[in-house]
Amino acid sequence: MTTKIKVAVFGASGYTGLELLRFLARHPQVELTALTSREYNGRPVAEVFPSLARFIRLPFVPPDPNLAWQVQVAFTAVPHQTAMALVPPLLAAGCRVVDLSADFRFRHRAVYEKWYQPHSAPELLTEAVYGLPELHREKLPQARLVGNPGCYPTCVILGLAPLVKARLVDLTSLIADCKSGVSGAGRGASLTTSYCEVHDSFKAYQVASHRHTPEMEQELSSLAGSPVKITFVPHLVPMSRGILGTLYGSLTKTLRDEEVFHLYQEFYQRQPFVRLYPPGTLPTTQHVRGSNFCDLGFKVDQERGRIIVISAIDNLARGAASQAVHNFNLMMGLPETLGIDLPPITP
Amino acid sequence: MTTKIKVAVFGASGYTGLELLRFLARHPQVELTALTSREYNGRPVAEVFPSLARFIRLPFVPPDPNLAWQVQVAFTAVPHQTAMALVPPLLAAGCRVVDLSADFRFRHRAVYEKWYQPHSAPELLTEAVYGLPELHREKLPQARLVGNPGCYPTCVILGLAPLVKARLVDLTSLIADCKSGVSGAGRGASLTTSYCEVHDSFKAYQVASHRHTPEMEQELSSLAGSPVKITFVPHLVPMSRGILGTLYGSLTKTLRDEEVFHLYQEFYQRQPFVRLYPPGTLPTTQHVRGSNFCDLGFKVDQERGRIIVISAIDNLARGAASQAVHNFNLMMGLPETLGIDLPPITP
Amino acid sequence: MTTKIKVAVFGASGYTGLELLRFLARHPQVELTALTSREYNGRPVAEVFPSLARFIRLPFVPPDPNLAWQVQVAFTAVPHQTAMALVPPLLAAGCRVVDLSADFRFRHRAVYEKWYQPHSAPELLTEAVYGLPELHREKLPQARLVGNPGCYPTCVILGLAPLVKARLVDLTSLIADCKSGVSGAGRGASLTTSYCEVHDSFKAYQVASHRHTPEMEQELSSLAGSPVKITFVPHLVPMSRGILGTLYGSLTKTLRDEEVFHLYQEFYQRQPFVRLYPPGTLPTTQHVRGSNFCDLGFKVDQERGRIIVISAIDNLARGAASQAVHNFNLMMGLPETLGIDLPPITP
Amino acid sequence: MTTKIKVAVFGASGYTGLELLRFLARHPQVELTALTSREYNGRPVAEVFPSLARFIRLPFVPPDPNLAWQVQVAFTAVPHQTAMALVPPLLAAGCRVVDLSADFRFRHRAVYEKWYQPHSAPELLTEAVYGLPELHREKLPQARLVGNPGCYPTCVILGLAPLVKARLVDLTSLIADCKSGVSGAGRGASLTTSYCEVHDSFKAYQVASHRHTPEMEQELSSLAGSPVKITFVPHLVPMSRGILGTLYGSLTKTLRDEEVFHLYQEFYQRQPFVRLYPPGTLPTTQHVRGSNFCDLGFKVDQERGRIIVISAIDNLARGAASQAVHNFNLMMGLPETLGIDLPPITP
Repeated sequence: MTTKIKVAVFGASGYTGLELLRFLARHPQVELTALTSREYNGRPVAEVFPSLARFIRLPFVPPDPNLAWQVQVAFTAVPHQTAMALVPPLLAAGCRVVDLSADFRFRHRAVYEKWYQPHSAPELLTEAVYGLPELHREKLPQARLVGNPGCYPTCVILGLAPLVKARLVDLTSLIADCKSGVSGAGRGASLTTSYCEVHDSFKAYQVASHRHTPEMEQELSSLAGSPVKITFVPHLVPMSRGILGTLYGSLTKTLRDEEVFHLYQEFYQRQPFVRLYPPGTLPTTQHVRGSNFCDLGFKVDQERGRIIVISAIDNLARGAASQAVHNFNLMMGLPETLGIDLPPITP
Repeated sequence: MTTKIKVAVFGASGYTGLELLRFLARHPQVELTALTSREYNGRPVAEVFPSLARFIRLPFVPPDPNLAWQVQVAFTAVPHQTAMALVPPLLAAGCRVVDLSADFRFRHRAVYEKWYQPHSAPELLTEAVYGLPELHREKLPQARLVGNPGCYPTCVILGLAPLVKARLVDLTSLIADCKSGVSGAGRGASLTTSYCEVHDSFKAYQVASHRHTPEMEQELSSLAGSPVKITFVPHLVPMSRGILGTLYGSLTKTLRDEEVFHLYQEFYQRQPFVRLYPPGTLPTTQHVRGSNFCDLGFKVDQERGRIIVISAIDNLARGAASQAVHNFNLMMGLPETLGIDLPPITP
Repeated sequence: MTTKIKVAVFGASGYTGLELLRFLARHPQVELTALTSREYNGRPVAEVFPSLARFIRLPFVPPDPNLAWQVQVAFTAVPHQTAMALVPPLLAAGCRVVDLSADFRFRHRAVYEKWYQPHSAPELLTEAVYGLPELHREKLPQARLVGNPGCYPTCVILGLAPLVKARLVDLTSLIADCKSGVSGAGRGASLTTSYCEVHDSFKAYQVASHRHTPEMEQELSSLAGSPVKITFVPHLVPMSRGILGTLYGSLTKTLRDEEVFHLYQEFYQRQPFVRLYPPGTLPTTQHVRGSNFCDLGFKVDQERGRIIVISAIDNLARGAASQAVHNFNLMMGLPETLGIDLPPITP
Repeated sequence: MTTKIKVAVFGASGYTGLELLRFLARHPQVELTALTSREYNGRPVAEVFPSLARFIRLPFVPPDPNLAWQVQVAFTAVPHQTAMALVPPLLAAGCRVVDLSADFRFRHRAVYEKWYQPHSAPELLTEAVYGLPELHREKLPQARLVGNPGCYPTCVILGLAPLVKARLVDLTSLIADCKSGVSGAGRGASLTTSYCEVHDSFKAYQVASHRHTPEMEQELSSLAGSPVKITFVPHLVPMSRGILGTLYGSLTKTLRDEEVFHLYQEFYQRQPFVRLYPPGTLPTTQHVRGSNFCDLGFKVDQERGRIIVISAIDNLARGAASQAVHNFNLMMGLPETLGIDLPPITP
């Protein structure tokens, strides 16, 4: 039996942190060593999250970068801007980092700074690997720093990658109409995520202005080899977990559903966490709940020359925590499904 | 005080029927005379729908067309194909009809028969008025037969009408990504509308193949004066009521949000049931719940030359029952808001 | 036609305030004159609550007691302790008041001060009428000040009153196991009412220690003519509206369901807002949603000598806003159902 | 490495079946050999339940008792009455059985037949072990047939056992007010479990007449050593999973919360799947979701001499499937937490 890998989670008391703990607490090669939370400093994790009683006996500690000296890998589930200050000292201490914020997802500083704010560690941007294993698997074993993708970009990029790479869609025609459960907004209390404001209602937000847009455009442009523009409209669904993306593109040639299916089969062969739905069937968020799967289905609107791709993920798992563990497994040379090979929970 | 108008409701025991009864039971000019239900024949309405106890003392009766002789107006909330057999004898008995099925919404028999099945009363298609008051208000006072619009078409047509009429969008670029509450599927028990299959999940269905597509294309083409094609993708939201349409079109010229707002203001001035959201704000289904309003908001995606319109209605009220009462008011020369001028219920 | 009654609502921007506005905006004898909100001072009501667009054109104003000079009646939907400071100047200005806080619900200062905090206007406690119309109808026409009941007490007192008054239950055996929708917690953002904390979950809170207990005991003791003790356990249901009370008592004599039904029929005859379910049927919260009804059903557990009463109300309507309007109607000599005779909205 | 145990699941296409498959598919000592379904006979399991794609490659087969010859253990997740016909041939073929129906939960045929219907295999009733591991752990290693407990009885018996055994509550005073998610009603489509009938509503059903009552009374009486009577009222909560029981009893002596806590600590020490909440905190269903835990909390209502116990389980997991696997582990001499030691999923 090999020695376990010592791991710290910074920002462990949000929903993404909680989901990380759910996976890491039972990961056979992980030893949870330090879990930080400013808000709950000193309190036992299982008191704040009773679901974890019997699994985690540690208390939360303050987010001290020196914790890096005690561990081999740190997951940083902190807000953007906080991450860019935290990550350099962690790396300096010899720690490898999976960052779940937006701070290390962009190759170009200018793009980041246009959508966020000035970057204090821009020298790390070229080094950081964009942690979508299906696209960047080969860079992960050597990576010191992984920028774990946003939840919406994970859903949209995986949904469009084969079509964009094959140039089967007009690159100016792309639309991503995405619908997310409420946990994507985090655990902080606010009127917009209050039960009565969300329940039995449906709404769009940040229409064509959401910060996940440039992430999608970066990766899709890279696949296409030329600039891709996408109109992205997120919506809030009265459910806790799940993102469904309905992705539209104008076809550059006539295609049948079966041809699309085969294109995706080829693109995603040997990827353990992408599941394809045969023509005539479609994914739903319920069937990926709690898991690392991305489920994909297709329909060509022949009469209007358009393709519609349906992409479903769990925003907290594949859109954040379990994808981070997937990246971790690949970084550490472990079997890639270790600790995240759980069936979705349904109903 | 005027004599009340005697009214029958055929198919009164579905959700649309129940919603009709909610409005008609308190309509000051309506006397409910006959309410039909095959399933609940003989049982008091208030026993089947306890919410209506103290409001309706009638029992359900069988759907006999001869009931038409006792009333001036019939609402037919029966399935398509049933309606085409029921409506002719009602008209023959001198009754005026608001039909809530799909059977009298199409001007062209061929279109109907392509999407549904053969039509047994095609001679009524040219006479029937498509009951979207904002578009066909002037024909309603004389109408003998109104084809009450589908829920999705109501949402989409009202959302796109001003842009399409002004030819500000490319007529081949339209996409309607719509999300509906579960009551739109009716009251019959089925696995697909079972609680555990819907709750905490989200899915698309009948992608680019839903029967409401030709209704949208008929009315939008008529407004444009030339053929309009639209890709329509409906989705199921874990909520009971409400439809939100996210409507996309490529702009034929550069527009600012404010210009769009003014275009809509002009188009919908003096329409009591369309409410416009100023730039920077967006409608939600919660704020129209239980009401006859259609709430509209806009956002131009300047960089991608595209407009996004958000359209929100209550599928059972504006998408069916209260719109039927609106049509009824206009047919009978009553104040158009009578009985349906209720604020939405929120939260 | 009579002149309308000028009305102010203090604390109009919470959920209770919003629900009051929904009823008052269409009340035929009410002229809304001033709506106060500290938080939204100066903003149009319809901007904060888009559901009310087209119904209310006023902006929110600060909660100045001098507004009382402009109106005949004030509804005070402010927190307890705030109300006890606000109400005396309103009364002094000649205004009549329906207070929706807890401050004027108790006959005995000591009881109030045990469960809340010191009372600054105790001299008003004997004057104030406990606004449960079914029990105190005769005192309302003369009332200057009404203490509108709490939501849980409304549900429980109406459910147990006939049995307690007839002494058919052991007065030490009473248990009220109540389940409430989330809107009862108000509109302020907090982790406990965040969507993801409530959704797909169920919990008890303030077990046998909730402040609504003494309200129930006061009224039930008064009906019984001797002290009543009740164990009250509230629970949070993942829904927005509704309270269902499951009320238990040990029978002092053998009773059949039908006898209980007749006892309640007699007790509540001529009460327009109490509806009784015949033996074998039971109320649900869905069938009272948005309305002023209290629906009651019964079941005797013969083998264990116990009765179970099921009581259903809408917590925002009958549990607060519409009951306040009911009290207002009775205070002002108006038909008691005016403005609140709306059918529940379902589904 | 040991050889895996061959297992069949009869009735694998309901929600309990699906939940069994979720656990068994990843159980390290189980080889799924045959999964039966009348309805889906011949279809791949992963086509019916897309969540299980990549985990189960078997198709459903018809429920042939001869399948018993191929396996060592059968889980029978079929309706009561079906089970009593199926189980004898399974046992005759040398198979051991965990039956999830009600057919083998009762020690006395008369009790079963009073609440259900005539029993065709009464000779097995004395042999069958009531599969609540905390109470009958020692009988499981030898058991040929286990009657897996009902969901409500699991919740209620675990909640009351320590108090009843210690005779600290009056045995005629017990009330179990239980609230269940909708999955407890099974996967069959019906109006009562339709989304719109359940959503944003709350109701009681089968008040003091539910078939789980005698199961509770059997086990609690056995613990007490004398007859226990309990009033049991189940309710339907708008959520998919979870049962919360609010359990009431009159105390036979004065107790503080801490004393109750210690009583439970002693009773449940070394039980891996019972978690106790310290005084002042309470369990919720969210924190056991998807897991085999039963979480318990307490509150003494000193003034009224009553204790309230809060008991939370996941109805599909601890209330059925994972408890069945727990029984299986104990029957087969495996580590008892094998395959079911997963943290709850929250939010």
